[in-house]
Amino acid sequence: MTPALTDLSSAELSELRSHLAAEYDALVARGLSLDITRGKPSPAQLDLSNELLSLPGDGDYKDAAGTDLRNYGGAQGVPELRSIFSDAFRVPVPQLLALGNASLTVMHDVVVHALLHGLPESERPWSKEQTVTFLCPVPGYDRHFAINEHLGIRMVPVAMTDAGPDIAEVERLLAEDPSIKGIWCVPVHSNPTGAIYTEEVARALVSLPAAADFRIFWDNAYAVHHLTDDVPAPIDILKLAEEAGHPDRVFVFGSTSKVTYAGSGVSFFGSSPANVSWYLGHTAVQSIGPDKINQLRHVRLLRDPQGLTDHMLKHREIIGPKFQAVQEVFERRLAPYGAGSWTNPTGGYFVSLDVRDGCAARAIALAAQAGIKVTPAGSTHPYGKDPRDANIRIAPTMPPLAELVEALEGLCTAILLAELEKLVAPPLVE
Amino acid sequence: MTPALTDLSSAELSELRSHLAAEYDALVARGLSLDITRGKPSPAQLDLSNELLSLPGDGDYKDAAGTDLRNYGGAQGVPELRSIFSDAFRVPVPQLLALGNASLTVMHDVVVHALLHGLPESERPWSKEQTVTFLCPVPGYDRHFAINEHLGIRMVPVAMTDAGPDIAEVERLLAEDPSIKGIWCVPVHSNPTGAIYTEEVARALVSLPAAADFRIFWDNAYAVHHLTDDVPAPIDILKLAEEAGHPDRVFVFGSTSKVTYAGSGVSFFGSSPANVSWYLGHTAVQSIGPDKINQLRHVRLLRDPQGLTDHMLKHREIIGPKFQAVQEVFERRLAPYGAGSWTNPTGGYFVSLDVRDGCAARAIALAAQAGIKVTPAGSTHPYGKDPRDANIRIAPTMPPLAELVEALEGLCTAILLAELEKLVAPPLVE
Repeated sequence: MTPALTDLSSAELSELRSHLAAEYDALVARGLSLDITRGKPSPAQLDLSNELLSLPGDGDYKDAAGTDLRNYGGAQGVPELRSIFSDAFRVPVPQLLALGNASLTVMHDVVVHALLHGLPESERPWSKEQTVTFLCPVPGYDRHFAINEHLGIRMVPVAMTDAGPDIAEVERLLAEDPSIKGIWCVPVHSNPTGAIYTEEVARALVSLPAAADFRIFWDNAYAVHHLTDDVPAPIDILKLAEEAGHPDRVFVFGSTSKVTYAGSGVSFFGSSPANVSWYLGHTAVQSIGPDKINQLRHVRLLRDPQGLTDHMLKHREIIGPKFQAVQEVFERRLAPYGAGSWTNPTGGYFVSLDVRDGCAARAIALAAQAGIKVTPAGSTHPYGKDPRDANIRIAPTMPPLAELVEALEGLCTAILLAELEKLVAPPLVE
Repeated sequence: MTPALTDLSSAELSELRSHLAAEYDALVARGLSLDITRGKPSPAQLDLSNELLSLPGDGDYKDAAGTDLRNYGGAQGVPELRSIFSDAFRVPVPQLLALGNASLTVMHDVVVHALLHGLPESERPWSKEQTVTFLCPVPGYDRHFAINEHLGIRMVPVAMTDAGPDIAEVERLLAEDPSIKGIWCVPVHSNPTGAIYTEEVARALVSLPAAADFRIFWDNAYAVHHLTDDVPAPIDILKLAEEAGHPDRVFVFGSTSKVTYAGSGVSFFGSSPANVSWYLGHTAVQSIGPDKINQLRHVRLLRDPQGLTDHMLKHREIIGPKFQAVQEVFERRLAPYGAGSWTNPTGGYFVSLDVRDGCAARAIALAAQAGIKVTPAGSTHPYGKDPRDANIRIAPTMPPLAELVEALEGLCTAILLAELEKLVAPPLVE
C-alpha cells in the first residue's frame, strides 16, 4: 500500500516530487484543452429532449381549458405543466407557478422585489435596512452568492453537513443577528456536495425563531436528478412550514434546465398563497406572462409525472458512468497518498473535493497551465473566498467520458504536486 | 347635415336624448359581451406564425457559427436574429441584444438596475436620490407608467404632438428639474395616438441639456407595424445621440410580440457599447442566457429583413380593415354631432379618441353597463388620471371585424349619451 504523503521520508518526498514533476511536464507538453468548470448537460443529454425542436406541433397551441397560449396573459403558467411538477416539488398546483427559462432569474427577482418593496411582513423594503444578511451553507452554489454580492447583501457562511446546514450554527446565528433575512438551500443533491437535507433539518429550518420576513430560498434544482435507485422521499417543506406556524417562510424554486434544454427550459416558483400573491403583484408590472407555448412543448414532451421520471432515468444512464469515473480516478490517484476527500453523490451535478488546506488554488492554477480548466478555487464560498483554500468543485457532466477522465487525471497530478509543494518548499513549478 | 350638439336647441337636445336613451336601453337589453381593452393580436394574426409550433425542426439547434443553442450561455442572443432586426431598429448588431419573451421585462429591469446600481454616469443609485422623475408624453402607454408608479418614480406629463412630445415643454422641464432621469418614447406609431416622431424631435431629445444619467427609453414597439404604404424612414437614434455628444443617452427596446406570438416572442435591447456592457454586467447575475432555441425558431420563420417585411404585410391585410372600421364608425356616428376627435394612424395598435372634457369615464362606464369593455378612462395618463377626462384608447386588433363594429357602435351611443348629459343635466342613465 502506498503511504500517505505525510508518512513519507524527506528522500521519498523528493523522489515522488521528481516523478510528479516529470509527469506534469509531459502533461503540459500535450497541450490539452479540457473544461470541467460548469454544471452543463452534455450534447447527449440535450439530445434526449430533441422532440422539443418540433413540438408542440402544427395546430397545437391550446391548453386543456381551451386557452390560446400564443397570446399574452397566463401569469401563473400552463396548468398541465404545473401538474406534472407539483409532486416532485411538493407544491400544490395553485401555489406553483411555471415561468421563464431560468430559475436564477426568479431567485434574483425575488430578492430584488424584497429589496425594493419588502416582503408582506417587512417593516420596510430590505434596501432601507442598515444591513441585510443571508446565511450561506458552504460549500455552496456560486450563482446564489453572486446574487447576494451584486445586490449588496451580506453573506455569512454556515457549515454544510451530510444532512444539510449545521442547524446548531444556524440557530445560534439567527438568534444573535436579526439582520438575517434569508438562507440559500439546495435541499436535494446539494450543489456541490450532493448532500440531501433530512426532514429533521428541514423541520428545524422552518421552526427556528427568526425575523418575521426571514425566507428559506429552497432551490430544489436537482429534485428529480437521481443517479441511483436510492431516491430520497421529497420533503413537503411548505407543509412543514405551515405546521411550524411559519407558513410564509419558504420560497421554492426549480427548473427544467437540467431536465430538457439548459437554455430553453421552464422555471418554477412555489410558495404559500400569500407569497405567491406578493410575487405576482410585483411581476404584473414586469411581464404580461411567460412563454406558454414553450410550457406546452414541455407538457407534450414529458406528458405526466411518470414521463418525467422515465426521462430522468435516461439522463442517469448517460451521466452515471461519469460520476463513477470521478470516484474511480480519485480512488486510484489520490486515495493511495491520503490526498483529498470527496463526496459520492447519489444525484445532482457535482462532486465536492477537499484537498489539503492551502492547496486548492495552486492545484487549479497548475491544472490550468496544463490546459485543464476547473471551477476557480473559492467559487463555492461567499465572495469567492474559501478560508481554507481547500474546496474544488468537480462538474463531470459536460465532457465526453474519455475527456473527463483525462482532465481528472491531470487534475490529480496537479493536486498531488500542489500538496507536495506544501510539504516541500520551494514550489516545483512557477 | 346634422348640427353639432352644441348647436342644438334645448328641444332638439331633449329629443336626441330620448332617442339615444332608447337606443342605449336596446343595447343593454342585448346583453353583449365585447372587449376592446387591450392591444392583443387576433387569432388570425397569430396563425401567421404557426410554423413556430414545429420550428426549428428535427436536428436544427445550432447557429451559423456552430454553437449548440440548447445549452446555457449566449447572453447577447443569436447573432442571426439580431441581424434580421438590426435595420428595423437601426442598431448595429454588436449593440443589439436578443433576449426573453417580453420587452416590458427588459424595460422594467433596466429601471431596476438603475435604481439599485445607477447608470455609469450616476452619482449614486437612483434609489438613493431624493426624487427620480420621468417625463411621460401623454396620452401614452399605461404599462410604462405602471413601471414608474410601482417603482416609486415620479411622473410628469408632457403633451404629445403629431411629431412627438412637445419639445419646448421637454426643454423647459429638463432645464428646471435635475431629478428628471428618463422619458418614455414610442417613436413609431406611438401608443395610443399613432404619432411618428420626426427626426427633428429625435435630434432635440438627444441634444437638450439634461442630467448626465438622463435616458431616453426609446420603446420602438411598432417599428415594423405599418398599415399603409407610407412607411416612415427609421430614425437612427443612436447615431443622432452620438452626433449630439450624448452617445449613451438612449436605450432602444423592441420585440416580436406583435410580429409573431404575443406571449412567445423575442425582445430586443439596443444601446451604446457602454450601456450594453452596463446592462450585461447586471443581467449576468440574473440569467445564464436567453431562450436561444426560440430565437432560432424566429430566424427560421422570418429568414431575413425582407422576410420580416413580408410577414408584416400579412398582418396589415388582417388588421387594416379593422382600423378602417374605426374611422368609418366614428365618422358616421360621432362626426355629425361634432362629438369626438380621433387619430388615423398609419400603423401600430391603437386609435386615440378624445371626447368632450369630463365625458370619457362616464362614456366608458355606460359602455361597460352595456357589456362593452373599453380600456379604463385615464389609463393613457400617469397614475391613471386624465386631468381632462377626455381620452379613450381604442384597441381594434383583437375582436373579429363584426364584433369590433358592434362594440364601436355601442361605444358611440355611450359617448353621445355622456356628452348629452354634460349639456343637459341631470344624467339620463344612473
